[in-house]
Amino acid sequence: MKALTRFVPILDWGLHYNPKDLPGDITAGIIVTSLLVPQSMAYALLANLPPQVGLYASILPLILYAVLGTSRSLAVGPAAVDSLLVATGVGAVAAVGSPEYLSLAILLAFSVGVVQILLGVFRLGFLVNFISQAVIVGFTSGAAFIIALSQFKHLLGLEIPSSSNFFELLFLLIRAIPNTHLMTFALSVGSIVILLVFKTIIPKVLKQREMSPVAMTPITKGGPLFVVIVSTILVWQLGLDTKVNIVGEIPQGLPPLTLPSLNLGDIQRLFPVILTLTFVSFVEAFAVAKSLASQRRQKVDANQDLIALGTANLGSAFSGGYSVTGGFSRSVVNFTAGANTQLAAIITAVLIFITVWFLTPLFYFLPQASLAAIILVAVVNLIKIEPLQRLWRYNKADGVALLVTFFAVLITGVATGIVVGVIFSIILYLWRTSRPHIAIVGRVGESEHFRNIERHEVSTCPHVLAIRVDESLYFANTKALEGYLTNAILQYPQVKHLVLICSGINFIDGSALETLEQLIQEMEQIGVTFYLAEVKGPVMDHLEKAKFPERLGRDRIFLSTDQAMRTLECV
Amino acid sequence: MKALTRFVPILDWGLHYNPKDLPGDITAGIIVTSLLVPQSMAYALLANLPPQVGLYASILPLILYAVLGTSRSLAVGPAAVDSLLVATGVGAVAAVGSPEYLSLAILLAFSVGVVQILLGVFRLGFLVNFISQAVIVGFTSGAAFIIALSQFKHLLGLEIPSSSNFFELLFLLIRAIPNTHLMTFALSVGSIVILLVFKTIIPKVLKQREMSPVAMTPITKGGPLFVVIVSTILVWQLGLDTKVNIVGEIPQGLPPLTLPSLNLGDIQRLFPVILTLTFVSFVEAFAVAKSLASQRRQKVDANQDLIALGTANLGSAFSGGYSVTGGFSRSVVNFTAGANTQLAAIITAVLIFITVWFLTPLFYFLPQASLAAIILVAVVNLIKIEPLQRLWRYNKADGVALLVTFFAVLITGVATGIVVGVIFSIILYLWRTSRPHIAIVGRVGESEHFRNIERHEVSTCPHVLAIRVDESLYFANTKALEGYLTNAILQYPQVKHLVLICSGINFIDGSALETLEQLIQEMEQIGVTFYLAEVKGPVMDHLEKAKFPERLGRDRIFLSTDQAMRTLECV
Repeated sequence: MKALTRFVPILDWGLHYNPKDLPGDITAGIIVTSLLVPQSMAYALLANLPPQVGLYASILPLILYAVLGTSRSLAVGPAAVDSLLVATGVGAVAAVGSPEYLSLAILLAFSVGVVQILLGVFRLGFLVNFISQAVIVGFTSGAAFIIALSQFKHLLGLEIPSSSNFFELLFLLIRAIPNTHLMTFALSVGSIVILLVFKTIIPKVLKQREMSPVAMTPITKGGPLFVVIVSTILVWQLGLDTKVNIVGEIPQGLPPLTLPSLNLGDIQRLFPVILTLTFVSFVEAFAVAKSLASQRRQKVDANQDLIALGTANLGSAFSGGYSVTGGFSRSVVNFTAGANTQLAAIITAVLIFITVWFLTPLFYFLPQASLAAIILVAVVNLIKIEPLQRLWRYNKADGVALLVTFFAVLITGVATGIVVGVIFSIILYLWRTSRPHIAIVGRVGESEHFRNIERHEVSTCPHVLAIRVDESLYFANTKALEGYLTNAILQYPQVKHLVLICSGINFIDGSALETLEQLIQEMEQIGVTFYLAEVKGPVMDHLEKAKFPERLGRDRIFLSTDQAMRTLECV
Repeated sequence: MKALTRFVPILDWGLHYNPKDLPGDITAGIIVTSLLVPQSMAYALLANLPPQVGLYASILPLILYAVLGTSRSLAVGPAAVDSLLVATGVGAVAAVGSPEYLSLAILLAFSVGVVQILLGVFRLGFLVNFISQAVIVGFTSGAAFIIALSQFKHLLGLEIPSSSNFFELLFLLIRAIPNTHLMTFALSVGSIVILLVFKTIIPKVLKQREMSPVAMTPITKGGPLFVVIVSTILVWQLGLDTKVNIVGEIPQGLPPLTLPSLNLGDIQRLFPVILTLTFVSFVEAFAVAKSLASQRRQKVDANQDLIALGTANLGSAFSGGYSVTGGFSRSVVNFTAGANTQLAAIITAVLIFITVWFLTPLFYFLPQASLAAIILVAVVNLIKIEPLQRLWRYNKADGVALLVTFFAVLITGVATGIVVGVIFSIILYLWRTSRPHIAIVGRVGESEHFRNIERHEVSTCPHVLAIRVDESLYFANTKALEGYLTNAILQYPQVKHLVLICSGINFIDGSALETLEQLIQEMEQIGVTFYLAEVKGPVMDHLEKAKFPERLGRDRIFLSTDQAMRTLECV
């Protein structure tokens, strides 16, 4: 039973459901619905898909994640960056608006689901660790720029071809600006103003009246729904439907459960975007899940969540939807509105199902400009300057990785951009480890503690050189070590004993061991004896296997630097 | 002057030439010539080039390296693995035997030269460090297998298409074996037997007679020359030239100095092999140079040697030759025969020039089978089992990297194979650092030394947990650290203080710092206070920049673990 609970978490919270959690779950379910209905349609448009596809992606996936996911408050559904990836990836293979485009988007969700499930089953969730925080921030900011820019065509009522390249978009947009449709523009400005009022002024006012955050959420987060209602009524009553672009007819009810057409050639052509989307959507969802779980001291499991998210994507594909993930802002709303369990998500799914079944005619007059305004205001939050400043101050390398990823996304596009960022940050790491920090150390006062002679007041002896290497020794830095030691010996000609302090050495690979043995031999020849101190257990185990201690002499390996120095009469 | 000497090392040894070095240089020059003449023709054939191209590559390049190179005993010229790379790379673009093939081979040498010079000028020699010893051994052994197999067609006198894929070669060969040309086979067996006698029996006999290694070298290394002379006379006298494949007519004299035709499309198509050859030839040459230099306590400089080797390759291209490098066995012969300076190489170059100018008619009757035998016996040395056993015993990961490279070379070819190997060994390294070794430590006796509680007899206190992380903290291992610390706190519920010992932490990147700050906050919430000990200077500098010590509290950062433990009353 316990094992089953681990793989089907709903058995855990569902069977022991505490009725006290119900009010919170119901409130959160309703509020998220009011947010998700406009958002899911807007993001579908961003993905160049019909708006109802976004709604379809907000029913079954939510229920599947509720059954299998380990987060209690993650709100699954379409998301901005993922929708941009769909637009880029599918747009490269099929024409926007063609039936092929829709079926490829469904195939993409299906493939992402399969890959995520496989990664989870084979416990490869750790792979996402290789996407550093700098890369995530740079990627998200870059994608947000592209998304924001892509909405101006709807906001200004321009007819320009869709593109997912930042500079092409900018060029097309600037050229078309004189053709701005003023009524659309007015609607957009109105929508944006309303959204900003909901976002900034209303919370401030309510806070001054000392309203609790839980009571505030339904009001402050009602902006998108309010914009949708007001702008729809406006267009309908003023008869603007022939003047501005509207959502138009949305088929009522759900499409039948279908199997995506599995064409190997299509999968091959979508392959890069499948991989990118697999990781991007999981990184996003899991980061949110983890941060919310830690606030309530709950636990989330990466591999199980990969399976859950993968199943949600499969479910989306089977029910005519497209790729989903756990959205950041939506999950935070869910959490703040009081969602205690995934029952909130199930309630949301039921409400969206009712919307799709009965209420789609109401969206007929909804102007696309309002949806674009909702996207714009949402993604501006994703553009972050603060992490760049912080990373830059802390560590230039991280800052550079962030900027490289950001510009790679703008210049080469979202899918390639993140790959460039990941590869760049790995190269940066390798570069750093290939030039290890090495210090000559001396005794701190009368203690048994030894520190860098250049940073601390320490005492040394002329006949002993104690050198600490602050990096594991492996193929990429053996030559740097060799160079340093050789130079040190030349610099201190009176030295008879060299003690290599291994406290910073976490492993020594085969290439490094060979270099080390050569070095030891060369030093012997010029009368310098070699010693090791503070060799860590796991490193020693390996050295033993290679019979290195026999060759060096066991009496030349010391547990502590202090022991080594005492033996060499350097006290 | 000193700066000039650094960039033109011949000014160093040439202007202060010690006449005592002359006999050794002359002897070595002559012996290397006797080895290089047959080898360079044989390797040219391996590269699917006319034999004289190998000879052309053995004149100007030697002189250029002598002027610019930092090694005193490196013997430059065509080499086995590099010739295979030429055959693979150029063979993929042009038909063997076509004039285009030759001009592309020359263009390849030219491009490799340019890239090597650029790498040297921009001091990027360290890049070769990323090719680990395991990858080099795996690559060389794999290439040697392919080379050895490729010679069987000459040894057996078979007419089969040339291929650089091991399994295709094997298949073609097995199918053609029934067509073995017996007379060619007899010549091959004879040649191989002679070479093996020179290699094994003669040295043993001479050693028993207590001959010195220097006196022995001219005799023991004379095998190839002897085989060439005997087999040529045999073919000539017995009139076998119509029955077995012979070298045939070689134009007398040198081709005019020419510029390679710089076609951008060609360079693009050759690009992968240009990069591979650039690194492979330099890795090979520099490894030999370094090992020989260390035996005489001389110094070699990677970047200067890149420039020297690059110039040698340029020179080879301009004088109608193909890619060159410093060959291992040839350099060792040069060294053992007494070469004291690069004057030996200049003597070799002059002798080969004389050979090309006057003696090429003598090679008319030289059977190709003998050249194939020379290659076969030479490359068998490159297949090494011992490093695999040693690496495997020391560190499975290195052994796996060796095997992966070896099989990648056999399955995907030489050029792709080494790339696969390099990427694999880097991934292996990242994988290792992403799962750091973490140990809970305790005090060793009454000392100030703290070690792993699972490996040493140490004392601990229930209210303090001292944890040592044996790895720098960066994006790929933050999650592993988080998991370990969280579990440790759950396992030891009485713990009030957690001391993170940073002796093994050589840097903390931005992602890791963020995780650490989150962890510290979460621990505070459950009443566990967080401390740092033994933070290294460079790490502390970065933490200061991020104002981390202010946030944590400066009194929570200790110089030594002992200080931390005393402050926390754990003595």
